[in-house]
Amino acid sequence: MEFSEWYSEILEKAKIYDVRYPVKGCGCYLPYGFKIREKVLEVIRKKLNEKGHEECLFPMLVPETFLMKEAEHIKGFEDEVFWVTHGGKEELGEKLALRPTSETVIYPIMREHIKSHGDLPIKIYQIVNCFRYETKHTRPLIRVREIMTFKEAHTFHASKEECLDQVKEAVEIYKEIFDELEIPYLICRRPEWDKFPGGEFTIAFDTILPSGKALQIGTVHNLGQNFAKTFDIKFETKEGKQDYVYQSCYGISDRVIASVLAIHGDENGLVLPSNVAPIQIVIIPLIFKNTKDKVLTKSNEIRIELEKHGYRVKLDSREDIRPGKKYYEYEYIGVPIRIEIGPKDLEEEKVVVFRRDTKEKVKVSLNDLIKELNKIIKEYDQNLKNRAKEKFESMIVVVNSIEEIKNIDGKVILIPFDKKIYNEELEEKTGLKVLGKTKYKDQKYIALAKTY
Amino acid sequence: MEFSEWYSEILEKAKIYDVRYPVKGCGCYLPYGFKIREKVLEVIRKKLNEKGHEECLFPMLVPETFLMKEAEHIKGFEDEVFWVTHGGKEELGEKLALRPTSETVIYPIMREHIKSHGDLPIKIYQIVNCFRYETKHTRPLIRVREIMTFKEAHTFHASKEECLDQVKEAVEIYKEIFDELEIPYLICRRPEWDKFPGGEFTIAFDTILPSGKALQIGTVHNLGQNFAKTFDIKFETKEGKQDYVYQSCYGISDRVIASVLAIHGDENGLVLPSNVAPIQIVIIPLIFKNTKDKVLTKSNEIRIELEKHGYRVKLDSREDIRPGKKYYEYEYIGVPIRIEIGPKDLEEEKVVVFRRDTKEKVKVSLNDLIKELNKIIKEYDQNLKNRAKEKFESMIVVVNSIEEIKNIDGKVILIPFDKKIYNEELEEKTGLKVLGKTKYKDQKYIALAKTY
Repeated sequence: MEFSEWYSEILEKAKIYDVRYPVKGCGCYLPYGFKIREKVLEVIRKKLNEKGHEECLFPMLVPETFLMKEAEHIKGFEDEVFWVTHGGKEELGEKLALRPTSETVIYPIMREHIKSHGDLPIKIYQIVNCFRYETKHTRPLIRVREIMTFKEAHTFHASKEECLDQVKEAVEIYKEIFDELEIPYLICRRPEWDKFPGGEFTIAFDTILPSGKALQIGTVHNLGQNFAKTFDIKFETKEGKQDYVYQSCYGISDRVIASVLAIHGDENGLVLPSNVAPIQIVIIPLIFKNTKDKVLTKSNEIRIELEKHGYRVKLDSREDIRPGKKYYEYEYIGVPIRIEIGPKDLEEEKVVVFRRDTKEKVKVSLNDLIKELNKIIKEYDQNLKNRAKEKFESMIVVVNSIEEIKNIDGKVILIPFDKKIYNEELEEKTGLKVLGKTKYKDQKYIALAKTY
Repeated sequence: MEFSEWYSEILEKAKIYDVRYPVKGCGCYLPYGFKIREKVLEVIRKKLNEKGHEECLFPMLVPETFLMKEAEHIKGFEDEVFWVTHGGKEELGEKLALRPTSETVIYPIMREHIKSHGDLPIKIYQIVNCFRYETKHTRPLIRVREIMTFKEAHTFHASKEECLDQVKEAVEIYKEIFDELEIPYLICRRPEWDKFPGGEFTIAFDTILPSGKALQIGTVHNLGQNFAKTFDIKFETKEGKQDYVYQSCYGISDRVIASVLAIHGDENGLVLPSNVAPIQIVIIPLIFKNTKDKVLTKSNEIRIELEKHGYRVKLDSREDIRPGKKYYEYEYIGVPIRIEIGPKDLEEEKVVVFRRDTKEKVKVSLNDLIKELNKIIKEYDQNLKNRAKEKFESMIVVVNSIEEIKNIDGKVILIPFDKKIYNEELEEKTGLKVLGKTKYKDQKYIALAKTY
């Protein structure tokens, strides 16, 4: 099955994201999708909080004059902004933009909170909806008009060095986040012509979806003093002088959720990393007339025991649905582990444990169940990571000249870094997008790919 | 100090909500405010999830034709809707409203998920930002143009009875939520002329702020089949017939956060219920040259011990700030408990425990610390609840005739229920808003008040 067909089917049939809303590029997280999103956000929040970031919430409506203040910035966004022009039946005095991103919202406010070097550094973030009037083909969670999940961090520093260190910290945080989600990535320094509008440079994380196309899943921007000058954010230095603050910002969107779904899935449906799976273990009792009570009692005991050990467990004891159908359903929605409990196994004090990734079944003694599950889930996550890495590597091709590229399709291409060819024309020549400068197996390359 | 002045000062100085954003009715949750909000939302989510509600996320933009579909509904909102008319430089084919609430967004989608009685009931909710073009005087978190926190639940049922039971369940859930937040309330059945536009009847929760004005903090609406008919949401009944679903919806907004702040606070600042306090216990070491290490080591041990018992603790060992200033700061931001640790106390194996509500200090032996803290915090919460209830009762006046109302100011007024006077003219006659029919100490009344 083509990836894009697989992807659409998964979103619908696993009840993750409903695309039937009649506004282009706007969809709905259904309960199961929402739970996956929550788990992904838990990983992101934890990493940011550990490094001293504080969560906030800023307004969504941006006055036209604010958005227009930073010349480079607005050039990057003016064609993609939704405009509110009316309130009730009245025309507004000033047009309001739906935030495409929040630099121009947050910085005028933070200006009021920054007086002296003692107030710095400040590291904040918010997780909000934001809006882009995409004219290209939209794709659920990947290219949308309402980005329902936009985690944007913004930092403020007293020196250039501290700000550059923050950029490094952000890259490290993102590595940890994507590693925990078992998503492989290239780290690319975006070319000048594709950096964040108004920023100094952009470091991006790109993964590769099964289609062979690259997907940008995170970006880290060094803003230098550009926005500080535009929004007049000054502070008193240790030496008693006035200086503009140094800033960085970094974002992750719904695309990280799309990647988790797309990268680990297989022909039988979703395969979810255990930390993201809303249900980590499903228990299916095999119900027969004479042994029903015994099997159900034991199933319930096991559920309680697993929950005590911190697992998210579901016991499915519906009697009108046969086990085979249940197996299929929970495999499809990516539940990592299934425990089957039948009367015969119980006589032996054993259960059957099935893992979603390899589809292997093993018999496990009830006495060792927790110990074995801990081990299996560890292996399961490691295997997901390895498999994803393998697939990822198989979709990367190293070439030595531009000519070689022509015969390659559906891959991300690395060509040894060469200043002479590193310019915007390279995109025209190859018909590919230049992702930027990257390091791969300790060598420096230019990365090129078809992108989403 | 006037309440409205106190309230503005608290939002600013406790760094809860920044009002300096230049779009009327739009503000910013700062980190401390955001944490309070998170804790309040935890209470709300827990209660809804326990009763089988599932969280989702639906789009923000509403096509004009959808919003206009339900005639009563749009009449209630058409003067308060923000309209998006342009994307980039293009005019949109159809105007899009910023959701004022999400009935017209959610119902067309849920229609696709409801085929038969077996799909019912469905109980979902989302927590989102929504927008009202308020022309009245705005007030932070109370009357705003961007409602940053709108929890809206929507339920779908196969029968009228089940739907009415759901309304009852919702009222019970809201009671539990407000009880946990230690917010007293009247439960009023709103009059016909003030029910939810498009609904059958509305049950509202009203609290009273220290100004004596009533504040609506939660509403539960029985929608009957009105919206189902408008959006053609049908299902196959057990008997194989087609019927429209029965619906209810219920909402809570930022106002619940405003109430928590306003109701418990005193002349020294915030007083937060322990379940909502971002910091539950602050430890202040009294640092002197010779005993510094010993005191800091012990302080840290105590912090670890308290965290082990699930408390949110902060140890403030800054040396450049004297304890008195720290006391003032943490009292101001509403930290329930302060532990002071000095060298003399330590010799006695004791610490001083201060509670924010009564401002009492007691010496507690280190051996009994956890046990005593558990007890003190329990008393603290009970005291907050009692105090709030007392204040609440003191702002309610029962009268026997409309004439008596004229001499009363700054109170919520209850007048025995009488069909003959229960009409919209009552508002004109009294200059007050009719909150509706209510029960107070087992008697039936009409409740009247100035409102926010």
